[in-house]
Amino acid sequence: MNRRLVIRLLGSILIIEAASMVPSLLVALYFGDGDALSFVYTMGLMLVLGIPMHCLSRPQMTNLRAREGFLVVPLAWLLMSLFGALPFMFSGMIPNFFDAFFEAVSGFTTTGATIMTQLEGQPRGMMFWRAFTHWIGGMGVLVLTLAILPKMSGRTSHLVRAESPGPTLSKILPRMGDTAKVLYLIYGALTAIMLVVLMLCGMNFYEASIHAMSTAGTGGFNNYAASVGAFNSPLIEWVIAFFMVLFGVNFALFYKLLRGDWREVKNNEELRWFLCIVAGSSLLITLVILPNYQNDFFTALRYATFQVASIISTTGYATADINLWPVAAQMLIVLLLFFGSCAGSTAGGMKICRVAMLSKQGLREVRRVFQPRKVQTVRFEGKAVEESILRQVAVFFFAYIALIILGALLVSFEGLYDFETNFTAALTCVSNVGPGLGGVASGFSGYGSFAKSIFSLLMLAGRLEIFPILALFHPAIWRK
Amino acid sequence: MNRRLVIRLLGSILIIEAASMVPSLLVALYFGDGDALSFVYTMGLMLVLGIPMHCLSRPQMTNLRAREGFLVVPLAWLLMSLFGALPFMFSGMIPNFFDAFFEAVSGFTTTGATIMTQLEGQPRGMMFWRAFTHWIGGMGVLVLTLAILPKMSGRTSHLVRAESPGPTLSKILPRMGDTAKVLYLIYGALTAIMLVVLMLCGMNFYEASIHAMSTAGTGGFNNYAASVGAFNSPLIEWVIAFFMVLFGVNFALFYKLLRGDWREVKNNEELRWFLCIVAGSSLLITLVILPNYQNDFFTALRYATFQVASIISTTGYATADINLWPVAAQMLIVLLLFFGSCAGSTAGGMKICRVAMLSKQGLREVRRVFQPRKVQTVRFEGKAVEESILRQVAVFFFAYIALIILGALLVSFEGLYDFETNFTAALTCVSNVGPGLGGVASGFSGYGSFAKSIFSLLMLAGRLEIFPILALFHPAIWRK
Repeated sequence: MNRRLVIRLLGSILIIEAASMVPSLLVALYFGDGDALSFVYTMGLMLVLGIPMHCLSRPQMTNLRAREGFLVVPLAWLLMSLFGALPFMFSGMIPNFFDAFFEAVSGFTTTGATIMTQLEGQPRGMMFWRAFTHWIGGMGVLVLTLAILPKMSGRTSHLVRAESPGPTLSKILPRMGDTAKVLYLIYGALTAIMLVVLMLCGMNFYEASIHAMSTAGTGGFNNYAASVGAFNSPLIEWVIAFFMVLFGVNFALFYKLLRGDWREVKNNEELRWFLCIVAGSSLLITLVILPNYQNDFFTALRYATFQVASIISTTGYATADINLWPVAAQMLIVLLLFFGSCAGSTAGGMKICRVAMLSKQGLREVRRVFQPRKVQTVRFEGKAVEESILRQVAVFFFAYIALIILGALLVSFEGLYDFETNFTAALTCVSNVGPGLGGVASGFSGYGSFAKSIFSLLMLAGRLEIFPILALFHPAIWRK
Repeated sequence: MNRRLVIRLLGSILIIEAASMVPSLLVALYFGDGDALSFVYTMGLMLVLGIPMHCLSRPQMTNLRAREGFLVVPLAWLLMSLFGALPFMFSGMIPNFFDAFFEAVSGFTTTGATIMTQLEGQPRGMMFWRAFTHWIGGMGVLVLTLAILPKMSGRTSHLVRAESPGPTLSKILPRMGDTAKVLYLIYGALTAIMLVVLMLCGMNFYEASIHAMSTAGTGGFNNYAASVGAFNSPLIEWVIAFFMVLFGVNFALFYKLLRGDWREVKNNEELRWFLCIVAGSSLLITLVILPNYQNDFFTALRYATFQVASIISTTGYATADINLWPVAAQMLIVLLLFFGSCAGSTAGGMKICRVAMLSKQGLREVRRVFQPRKVQTVRFEGKAVEESILRQVAVFFFAYIALIILGALLVSFEGLYDFETNFTAALTCVSNVGPGLGGVASGFSGYGSFAKSIFSLLMLAGRLEIFPILALFHPAIWRK
């Protein structure tokens, strides 16, 4: 194992994270809520550690093998979350370590589950940083590192593969560093557009930027206990619903659109599944919740569409208390918790393409009943999918469910909540959504430190799609 | 498609089912509770239909292909359940068709979920038939048909494969008919032994036979609302717990034991996993529920072991109200609902070997991180498992979970229960266990006809391991 290279990379991530705190520091200085020094201390600490790690650790070889890639990524995310939690603790907003770590992990993994019970009146620099972690975590910090750092000589696709959501990696450009740059450019531009639109809808710059970053990362942190419902504005709800769906789309498609490649976007199978599921489940939930809204179809449609967009994009904003909805609507929401959006988007969850490939594998097994000897391929996006990908997808599904059940089992030993709460809490964490049913419809503050640590691990495992986190526990990764 | 052969086979199954009602008829005549005629009518109806179907439909070819095998099995189970429900209706014990069908399906699939609200004081012939359906369904009616019928000329392994639980079929003897005979002989002998032991523990012949058949089929129907708890006898509870675990063991191992092949039984990997899970979870639940039993370790151990044996063997007997247990114990029970026992036993569920193979596939994906190019095999029972089996197991898991979630979603449209009840109801039906949490801890009587139909389908799908039921909906199976 090339330890020097790993340390060097982790050092550069600390430096980048320190730099990424600058906007939050500026917000803190502008509003003067007394939280500016917390950022200064944290940034100082990160630079004091990060600069020597980056500069003194000169590896003899810069060739990055799979093993190092899979070691760097989970370590980077742990490190990021640890240091990202420090401002919350230093400012006194979240004094408890487990709480602050949970909040930072929830931010970077774009889950958006919170342990805070009071959002209004908190230091605005802190609230800005909380939303900023979503934005960084959405596209990925290693992707950012590759976009910024001078080109690395070795292969860097391992890094991006471990951090990018989805079963396959769609390289936009031949060089990984260029791909990373393009991705962040599109990401930044879309976030800026959303910010402007939200301001046109009446938000001020501070609120609009928080909501734009939180939506872009499909996170869900914002600054009101009532979430987006606090604005009481149908226009804002429709706008945010639209952007939540937009950020659930594979970013490679935006690049193709920019290059004028309409046909490939139109023929994208995953996108079609995604939009059909959004439209179908919105309509179905609308019909189920009609009685809750005095049979007003358009009001029900607005609440239903917003909730569907929020859950399937794994953002987790809310405009309604779904605990009050009929149980059929709740079950539909739980079903959507499993889906997630497109691969290569900022959303969490299983991803539509995995669900599609699994369904097609199921159909193949049925066909095999009649033609046991015929070689049957599974086609997706117009091509036969490699058997190794299909196998990975199927095993990923097992690991995903096993993680949810084991997580729910472990936290239930705290004995605080019922089955529904524990199960949907674990599900919402692994899927990086945020809210669940029952006791976790609005937050995780009721759980103890043990459960919060488990949930933090589940969120990280969900964001990195499980195997990089599992690999950390395998002795072979630490071997020299 | 060889329609004549299919019709001929279905006819013989009706005749066999009519014959299988004789013991229940004798019980009804002995006790004189007024339910004897219901059996006579049903048997008459089955013979009037079955004999012409069997005798007049002479196929030109008796060669049974995979397609016919997969068509006969689900149709046979539907037919059996339809006619098995008639005595319940004719006797007036369960007048509603959906209720009676649910009860019959629950019997044959060895689920043991009931819609009856009053068990005490019912006609004893009916209660005997209810337990008898477990016994027939446990080992399988096609297996019985093969054991009884004169040898068929064609290959019959398709029939047994579609009906036997587990990813692979362990042929005990070269001829399928002989295998079926051996299986039923062992099954009958073990049931008889259990009957005698229960009588030695103080049960009368009627009660002992009901409990022996119900346990042997790992079903769970009995004649008391308090289930096995009604006997208030620790001895009976330990005896039944022992036999529940015993009937969760692969029957091929009993045959090997009879032949003196100790070593193969001792080295059986699935058996070892099974026994470890039973022991480990019993102990864990004991510790969790200790406070509920005044910290009396042996009382808690008895309740915990009984519940674990009951759930993992998918029997579904109860001696305690698990809704009163701590949530951690409930979560452990839900986890066990997924496992099921060994392949080739009478138990339902995923089966231990599938869970083991899936876990090993998960570990393989982790290993691949470090050695992407090395060919890695998954070993089980000392041999490398074929990739096609691994793939089937993984896809089966997806279909299993998808079925549970879709089932829970569909029944939630009735709007009667909460998430916990609907989810564990679907889970317990697909796993053929019986009881769930919340509203279905003791029975399904609260659901409507629509939900009962869905649950009936889920139980059949679970018992036949999904794909034969899915294949019924594929147009190719009906093609000439």
